[in-house]
Amino acid sequence: MIIQLEKNITEEQFSNLKEKLKTFSYKSVKVSTQFSDYIIGVGKKEFDIRSIGTMEGISDIHRVSDAYKLVSRKWKVKETQIDLGDGVKIGQGAFQVMAGPCSIESEEQIKSTIDHLVKNGVKIMRGGVYKPRSSPYSFRGLGIDGLKLWHQHAKAAGLKIITEVMMTEQIDDMLEYVDIFQVGARNSQNFNLLDALGKIDKPIMLKRGISGTIDELLQAAEYIFSNGNEKIMLCERGIRSYETAYRNTLDINAIPILKEKSHLPVIVDPSHGIGVRKFVDSVALAGVMAGADAVIMEVHECPEKAFSDGQQTLDYGESKLLIERLKKTSEFRKEIGLR
Amino acid sequence: MIIQLEKNITEEQFSNLKEKLKTFSYKSVKVSTQFSDYIIGVGKKEFDIRSIGTMEGISDIHRVSDAYKLVSRKWKVKETQIDLGDGVKIGQGAFQVMAGPCSIESEEQIKSTIDHLVKNGVKIMRGGVYKPRSSPYSFRGLGIDGLKLWHQHAKAAGLKIITEVMMTEQIDDMLEYVDIFQVGARNSQNFNLLDALGKIDKPIMLKRGISGTIDELLQAAEYIFSNGNEKIMLCERGIRSYETAYRNTLDINAIPILKEKSHLPVIVDPSHGIGVRKFVDSVALAGVMAGADAVIMEVHECPEKAFSDGQQTLDYGESKLLIERLKKTSEFRKEIGLR
Amino acid sequence: MIIQLEKNITEEQFSNLKEKLKTFSYKSVKVSTQFSDYIIGVGKKEFDIRSIGTMEGISDIHRVSDAYKLVSRKWKVKETQIDLGDGVKIGQGAFQVMAGPCSIESEEQIKSTIDHLVKNGVKIMRGGVYKPRSSPYSFRGLGIDGLKLWHQHAKAAGLKIITEVMMTEQIDDMLEYVDIFQVGARNSQNFNLLDALGKIDKPIMLKRGISGTIDELLQAAEYIFSNGNEKIMLCERGIRSYETAYRNTLDINAIPILKEKSHLPVIVDPSHGIGVRKFVDSVALAGVMAGADAVIMEVHECPEKAFSDGQQTLDYGESKLLIERLKKTSEFRKEIGLR
Amino acid sequence: MIIQLEKNITEEQFSNLKEKLKTFSYKSVKVSTQFSDYIIGVGKKEFDIRSIGTMEGISDIHRVSDAYKLVSRKWKVKETQIDLGDGVKIGQGAFQVMAGPCSIESEEQIKSTIDHLVKNGVKIMRGGVYKPRSSPYSFRGLGIDGLKLWHQHAKAAGLKIITEVMMTEQIDDMLEYVDIFQVGARNSQNFNLLDALGKIDKPIMLKRGISGTIDELLQAAEYIFSNGNEKIMLCERGIRSYETAYRNTLDINAIPILKEKSHLPVIVDPSHGIGVRKFVDSVALAGVMAGADAVIMEVHECPEKAFSDGQQTLDYGESKLLIERLKKTSEFRKEIGLR
Repeated sequence: MIIQLEKNITEEQFSNLKEKLKTFSYKSVKVSTQFSDYIIGVGKKEFDIRSIGTMEGISDIHRVSDAYKLVSRKWKVKETQIDLGDGVKIGQGAFQVMAGPCSIESEEQIKSTIDHLVKNGVKIMRGGVYKPRSSPYSFRGLGIDGLKLWHQHAKAAGLKIITEVMMTEQIDDMLEYVDIFQVGARNSQNFNLLDALGKIDKPIMLKRGISGTIDELLQAAEYIFSNGNEKIMLCERGIRSYETAYRNTLDINAIPILKEKSHLPVIVDPSHGIGVRKFVDSVALAGVMAGADAVIMEVHECPEKAFSDGQQTLDYGESKLLIERLKKTSEFRKEIGLR
Repeated sequence: MIIQLEKNITEEQFSNLKEKLKTFSYKSVKVSTQFSDYIIGVGKKEFDIRSIGTMEGISDIHRVSDAYKLVSRKWKVKETQIDLGDGVKIGQGAFQVMAGPCSIESEEQIKSTIDHLVKNGVKIMRGGVYKPRSSPYSFRGLGIDGLKLWHQHAKAAGLKIITEVMMTEQIDDMLEYVDIFQVGARNSQNFNLLDALGKIDKPIMLKRGISGTIDELLQAAEYIFSNGNEKIMLCERGIRSYETAYRNTLDINAIPILKEKSHLPVIVDPSHGIGVRKFVDSVALAGVMAGADAVIMEVHECPEKAFSDGQQTLDYGESKLLIERLKKTSEFRKEIGLR
Repeated sequence: MIIQLEKNITEEQFSNLKEKLKTFSYKSVKVSTQFSDYIIGVGKKEFDIRSIGTMEGISDIHRVSDAYKLVSRKWKVKETQIDLGDGVKIGQGAFQVMAGPCSIESEEQIKSTIDHLVKNGVKIMRGGVYKPRSSPYSFRGLGIDGLKLWHQHAKAAGLKIITEVMMTEQIDDMLEYVDIFQVGARNSQNFNLLDALGKIDKPIMLKRGISGTIDELLQAAEYIFSNGNEKIMLCERGIRSYETAYRNTLDINAIPILKEKSHLPVIVDPSHGIGVRKFVDSVALAGVMAGADAVIMEVHECPEKAFSDGQQTLDYGESKLLIERLKKTSEFRKEIGLR
Repeated sequence: MIIQLEKNITEEQFSNLKEKLKTFSYKSVKVSTQFSDYIIGVGKKEFDIRSIGTMEGISDIHRVSDAYKLVSRKWKVKETQIDLGDGVKIGQGAFQVMAGPCSIESEEQIKSTIDHLVKNGVKIMRGGVYKPRSSPYSFRGLGIDGLKLWHQHAKAAGLKIITEVMMTEQIDDMLEYVDIFQVGARNSQNFNLLDALGKIDKPIMLKRGISGTIDELLQAAEYIFSNGNEKIMLCERGIRSYETAYRNTLDINAIPILKEKSHLPVIVDPSHGIGVRKFVDSVALAGVMAGADAVIMEVHECPEKAFSDGQQTLDYGESKLLIERLKKTSEFRKEIGLR
């Protein structure tokens, strides 16, 4: 149950509400976000919610039976739009491509990538400075200094930055230089990190776990939201299956289902979703056709020389062609009446 | 290794070839299909294939290292097109929708479905008369009498029929009434059935196994081809995964990969691929965008009353809208330069 | 609902029963097995089953809510024992090892294997004469002639034979020479084959599908039973998962669960269950400890030269040691009060 | 490549070694643990390692081709034993049971559990004070105060404590009160946490990820070891599969494979591995039979009232019986010559 509070609710009204909830044996959690104040009531008893809805200080009330509540579309029917400023928006029909290398490697690479993205009308650049790697002996990223360097060039070019954060301690240092914090698949249920990201006012793109369920992804988003941050995007990046012909199984089904269950924008990552360079275009286009609000993909001037993920990274020629097709496909969907 | 024989190869030339292969310790299998004669050579030794290619009676020779050979695009670069007659073709850019109920239930239902399909320009009707069911106590189909009845109406309306065959003994009886034999997911590695279907001259649509790999699907197709039938289509219908938010995980990755590895047409089954009625449209469109040559989907006048699979079946209104969008999407793909 | 009929039920009593069931809108199926006659009632309405139980001609009645009924332990509490004659029994505490090669290859191999088994007190020999192979170009077994040869030697040595049947047409020819028909993983939902095996009076060992659920395995067994054959064993042989460190994931959980859900004996196949020779012993012993009534495993005089599955096959030394340990483990389980 | 250094290696000798490695284009990482100093060389070039092995200051050198190195048995043939003090050891034939509730709930519960464990000869108590929960609205544990209370009673009773740590910031506070730090399945690839745990001198039990591969588990252990902590145990706790008859699929295959690939002790968690109370005993015993060095299981005075995981938790009667059988099974394995 979600109870939306009026901005000017008095202490007495609030106290009355909590007393009322106790009489139904409901546990109540107060949530204050950038936009609103809520009480989440968790309990089993069925009762007529109008008895609460009509109390003073309450602006709205909804019954939500899912394990996730604030991210559910049962509560908020209208799609959420993430506004990154400067006219860069995701969701509610606004479509974006996020592109860039797996790892930020050097100033030269940053400049070359920015040049490619600007030429092709891409507004958001991806890249890793903290890299989760299976082996402790692999390259683990340039860290905060790499991020600062990147930010300097990206800002000058008018590009937004999305990059992965791996631990709570990194957030403060990164905050100034990041437009979207990415939570990686391996941290999809790192609940302490999710708690911390719920306390800042920056958009978060949350990747589905390596074998995460749709429900777990939504509950992970609920962690962020219930800590106070409503600016969340969900990312389908392929799940682990028995098939070995590719890297991950892009779960195309998840896209329309997430759009139905939640009001949050849904991003598709075809690079990890199939993991094989020559098929990235087909599944990226399929992802948009299935309803994704944005595509995040790996691009490198010379994929063969990339520090990581080269086998799934597009070169600039492939990237240029795909970006054009993605935009046309997003338009085509609207033309045939979808969304 | 695939050796294509000249039509008029003499017995002596053929005998010379077999002797030659023996000297390389290659096992050789003769394959005669509707269109050509081949020798498949299986062995490990590397040698210069020109020493065979230049022999008399040989029209072509290719080295194919995959476990499947005749269905590999390494051998046959040009896409196969399935021609059902009356201008109904699949593959090489020709796109089709196959639609109809899960089970053929009654004459009334047959007529109603045909009427719907004809109105919407669909040329191929699907339906089951032999139904594989998990429980022995479930409805198992109307059998051969249902097929005859269906055929009578479909023929009058100019519709082609695709239906599932479950066992070798059924083939002869069904042959006259069927345009495409479907092999279901549970029979995807029923090798005796595949052998038998390789001996007839009717197109086969082979579904991927419930947890079949892409490689297993191609090897199953090789069974049919190597028994003499080149008219094969591959169907992606979702794989089994840990996710419970839907019925199967439509493996969108498989579509471009199958198109790359094999010259055979690829069909997508969104009804089984997601198994939830309201999402069938999104994944069907995604499947076409990813490169599928046809869509096979379940349609019923009243899905709630269908004998089987009602939860994933579209009603006529939904079907009409989706058929239009599928056709437009197939055209759109070509417009943006795909294929 | 299972209604066990009295042997001498009259036509009138039977007719009354069917009328009664109709009044509850229950579909009824008559099942006659080697041991008894039953009516399976399938319907949704709840009613007091005593109103049927007290009718004349009825010896027993049980409500079984599972999709499978006759194989459920909710109906038959006592474990089934399979009696192969000559004192060779499986189930109800009787433990057996079934061992032999993946494929029957030659008379010499047959004789060598029999010698090894007899020396080590094994009573049941496994081996394939019809081999399901992913590729049409692989060795597919010696067929019926191989079976006859094998049978001649096995019978002389007092060994029972278990071998795989792949299609309905093979059953009649094989019947005389086989003690247990094996249904392979790929045919686990070949419902026509299951129907046919339900009509003979020989024990069947049914393997779980490559990605079959426990419930599907039990429903497949229900196919056999409901066609008239009560002599069924269930075999856990590993399921397909994402892990690539071995061939299949032996589902140890399935063993106690199958024993709880069904009254049928449960066999464990460690050779396919892990697929790596040096670990077969550990998982075989674990399988017995978890409650398996028998172990089926691959043994060859020279695994490196086996026609198939050599990488998971034990040599005679390994086999001898494991057979001893399996028997001791089976005894140990009873000593600590299990079963 | 692992180069073990002599304790008194001089700066000059060390510098010579690094120069030498550079000539082979090998990246070198220095690792200093509680017990020894190592250089890990990562590179592709093959060369005669004796040219390094004979240098001064080097005590040993091994080529290890696995992605993990220090945890590989290719390097260290002898099994690692974890010594918790007071004679409580795990590995090298020393077997332990770790038991206790999912969550530490109250002082009363702590005392009751300790009483049960002491009576039954259990030396290590498990329990959660920081609980990873899918939903932010679930009980998340008593935290550090709960741990202190628990430690006070456990110490008095001579019991060792194993409990989960969820984030780096918790380590310092917990250090004094914990005998074994547990890394949960969701944090199995939380590389920053693994780094931090590599810098303390306390044993770590690392759980396999929810869909973690065996190789990923070993590489996660390599993170801890390469940061300086050799005291690591690996825990098989079930993987995610398509089967819904139970909670997780206990991967029994992983036990002998981990024992073969690594020198670290292997623990089995039957409670999570099957997740159904009445089958915990069967799979626990199977796990020991397959070679596990210890069992970790959930026990509660009244499972129905447990704050979490009640459905997979044993009561004291079930626990007592299982502990006895586990010990007997561990002995029986040795009697039949295993290990």
